[in-house]
Amino acid sequence: MNGRPEPVLITIFGANGDLAKRKLIPALFNLYHEKMLPESFRIIGVGRRGDRDSWVADMREGVDKFSRRGKPDEEEWKTFSDRMQFLFGNLEDPALYKAVSKVVADDEKELGRNINRIYYLSIPPGLISQAVKGLDGAGLSKNRQHDRVVIEKPFGRDLESAEDLNKQVMEAFEECQVYRIDHYLGKETVQNLLAFRFGNALFEPIWDRRYIDHVQITVAEDVGVEKRGAFYETAGALRDMIQNHLLQVMCMIAMEPPVSFEADEVRNKKVDVLRAVRSIPHGELYKYAVRGQYGAGYSCGEVAKAYRQEEGVDPQSSTETYAALKLYVDNWRWQDVPFYLRTGKRLPHKVSQVSIEFKPVPHQIFPGTAGDHWEPNRLIINIQPKEGIVLRFQAKQPGKGMRLQTVNMDFYYDEAFHVEPPEAYETLLYDVMQGDSTLFMRADQEHVAWSLIDPILQAWTNTPSADFPNYPAGTWGPEAGEALIARDGRSWHSMPVDTH
Amino acid sequence: MNGRPEPVLITIFGANGDLAKRKLIPALFNLYHEKMLPESFRIIGVGRRGDRDSWVADMREGVDKFSRRGKPDEEEWKTFSDRMQFLFGNLEDPALYKAVSKVVADDEKELGRNINRIYYLSIPPGLISQAVKGLDGAGLSKNRQHDRVVIEKPFGRDLESAEDLNKQVMEAFEECQVYRIDHYLGKETVQNLLAFRFGNALFEPIWDRRYIDHVQITVAEDVGVEKRGAFYETAGALRDMIQNHLLQVMCMIAMEPPVSFEADEVRNKKVDVLRAVRSIPHGELYKYAVRGQYGAGYSCGEVAKAYRQEEGVDPQSSTETYAALKLYVDNWRWQDVPFYLRTGKRLPHKVSQVSIEFKPVPHQIFPGTAGDHWEPNRLIINIQPKEGIVLRFQAKQPGKGMRLQTVNMDFYYDEAFHVEPPEAYETLLYDVMQGDSTLFMRADQEHVAWSLIDPILQAWTNTPSADFPNYPAGTWGPEAGEALIARDGRSWHSMPVDTH
Repeated sequence: MNGRPEPVLITIFGANGDLAKRKLIPALFNLYHEKMLPESFRIIGVGRRGDRDSWVADMREGVDKFSRRGKPDEEEWKTFSDRMQFLFGNLEDPALYKAVSKVVADDEKELGRNINRIYYLSIPPGLISQAVKGLDGAGLSKNRQHDRVVIEKPFGRDLESAEDLNKQVMEAFEECQVYRIDHYLGKETVQNLLAFRFGNALFEPIWDRRYIDHVQITVAEDVGVEKRGAFYETAGALRDMIQNHLLQVMCMIAMEPPVSFEADEVRNKKVDVLRAVRSIPHGELYKYAVRGQYGAGYSCGEVAKAYRQEEGVDPQSSTETYAALKLYVDNWRWQDVPFYLRTGKRLPHKVSQVSIEFKPVPHQIFPGTAGDHWEPNRLIINIQPKEGIVLRFQAKQPGKGMRLQTVNMDFYYDEAFHVEPPEAYETLLYDVMQGDSTLFMRADQEHVAWSLIDPILQAWTNTPSADFPNYPAGTWGPEAGEALIARDGRSWHSMPVDTH
Repeated sequence: MNGRPEPVLITIFGANGDLAKRKLIPALFNLYHEKMLPESFRIIGVGRRGDRDSWVADMREGVDKFSRRGKPDEEEWKTFSDRMQFLFGNLEDPALYKAVSKVVADDEKELGRNINRIYYLSIPPGLISQAVKGLDGAGLSKNRQHDRVVIEKPFGRDLESAEDLNKQVMEAFEECQVYRIDHYLGKETVQNLLAFRFGNALFEPIWDRRYIDHVQITVAEDVGVEKRGAFYETAGALRDMIQNHLLQVMCMIAMEPPVSFEADEVRNKKVDVLRAVRSIPHGELYKYAVRGQYGAGYSCGEVAKAYRQEEGVDPQSSTETYAALKLYVDNWRWQDVPFYLRTGKRLPHKVSQVSIEFKPVPHQIFPGTAGDHWEPNRLIINIQPKEGIVLRFQAKQPGKGMRLQTVNMDFYYDEAFHVEPPEAYETLLYDVMQGDSTLFMRADQEHVAWSLIDPILQAWTNTPSADFPNYPAGTWGPEAGEALIARDGRSWHSMPVDTH
């Protein structure tokens, strides 16, 4: 599974889009550079603007600007781009899919009959069912083993629309052919959660309600909505971040040990977690879910305008740019251990972190003078910006007498491995080629995740917030977000924790 | 307990000796510099050479050369040395103790009646009983609260002589007045073992036979016997290192949580460990204890002569310069978990380390391709040269696919605290002034430790080794030392582990 994939034909729908330019083509080029693409491959861009040459030039600009490796070697880019084709067409036109089918057939003559064919739908959510239907109509979905479709999130905008979308996809493809991308799952540290938990015997024995007090998951952004105001108005923090990224990270923290590292086994264990999440008691939503929207303030030392003043945003918008949840997982392992999730825009730092707080020592043997503040142990998993693991524990202060102080034992990926980890899209595209769907969302995962947040979405939609904006840009969110956790006698952990 | 001690009078017997010059006076001066000596204090050197001025000059040379702070400020040395007195005399002469008594009485007139009086016996083992008797005869042992005697190891040379010595000490002093120094216990990292284990809730739940496979304790020296050949001939590695340092470290790793940090409570729990050590089965000594003696070889890049060629050493000597033991602690926590102890001279590095190896994961979920070598988790406590704690665990290698690699999460005292820890003698002298005997050996600890090694000592004395020298200088000891642990399917951990 770690070698070069079989010959492949990758068709990107939405080839003129930002994602292709910033992520997909740079990722494919980096895979090519590392000889992680097969010798035989073709990339077909399907778009509604320009021709092959202008598209290739635009993509080259993307690699120059956004690839983690910087500008490519000219020779190498040439041999890579020689494999790029372009097809002009409208996704709503059935003729397009016939044309794709023809190009595919031509390429197959050269690359061989049994190559893998990947259809990457990098297109607006509203066009996905059309594209899926088109592919099916042109006979491009028939081969259970070799025809694969990649769908970008969001997969719907609530439980009902997600179910509708899924039904349409399932009419054309079987589940094993569908790769629903949540790029967060392709990040090294997110994947490393599995290695950390199940490659080590040390942590699993204390990974439960007997030893863990609670878990905090934070995904904070310092930016506002930037140019995505119009899109964000239709999304909000709960849909945009919690339904996917944060719940997935929570699954990896809370899941039972899988029997094997097979895709479906891992996904079964993850979905078990979501299924066990306790429903929020009727009428007590405010104790479990908090929303916020940023007002004007300061961000990274500069004046930042309010969300309602951003381009494309309704001046009376009730879209949340901050959301915090408290969830319980009702099973033997996690009964009564709260999982606190929070995410937001225009928070003080860009940081993604899981912080696991253990219970205090059952009996304190040291005299009161040994410490001013007894911090229980914490295991902190930094997802970004600096990927690593920090264990906070008590050590004796050097010097006479016994005084304890909280210190960090730490591990950082870049220091340990001295290599830059691959971009999430490299990992994920490689996995699609390999037919490994471990890191992709299965239909039932999506379904349960939507079921979980649908009641909150509905409640918030039905009752627009009366106090928006309720936090200034550049702060850690609304007061109610602090109250959510303080009500349980706890508080959000300060971050980032970084001893370097 | 962390402030300045009460006024004190410290009398050092053996004031012309190496220990006073290298350790005691530099430690006292550093305590003075840090205002950890009381305002009122006197130091009386009792020796058989020179006078006050020559003694003070010699001690000053010791501070210049051996203090961790380097040369002192002249002014500060002067005010310190103004408190130094000298008494010329022979330890075997009862008149000496009368003279001491008079000086003490004179000083008391100035410092006050209820000062603490510390008698530090930095003298050869053979003279201790004489000195104790002398102190008692001069009435210097009577005050249970204020008269304290400090005795340097070795406390005897086998069970019988240790018992004899102890009996004599106990005729003059009560247990609470006696401070038996094992300077190893004054080291910061050794003390930190207690903070680490009992200040954190994270480690105690996995600190037992269910999760720990075995424990390795290594105290390695790269030097040979240097100028101490004649002394070493009467000692050997078992007496010199294992009976005290290594067994004490083992106690701190294996002890049950004390109820409090009181001296007797901590010492009770430590002695419980030694009491639970399984007797070596009759006739199976070779499976549990290995001895070695270095031959010629290379040490730190230079030719090193054999032990038998060292100054003061019998050319047919059967004294061991290396010893390794396998011990079991027969209680609920440690049943069947081996503790492997080893120490030696002329080993490749100077390093003291405890390495705790955990059991492997109960079930491996990753495919065989995920790792070439599955190293179980290890917790490594470095006592020297670089004090710190390292946790070895599996992490995912950055890149496509799941490949695991063993990496280190680490914590080093100097990086965390940016202060140089005090020397062991500073800590211990301060504790004697404070009347805190936690880090000192109680009579029963000594007794059990001797009982433990006495059968090995006897067997080795009765049957001189046939194969000495059995390891070349600069190697990790004799082949039998490797076989001792390899017989159980394990091996000594390579060291030092230091990622910096």
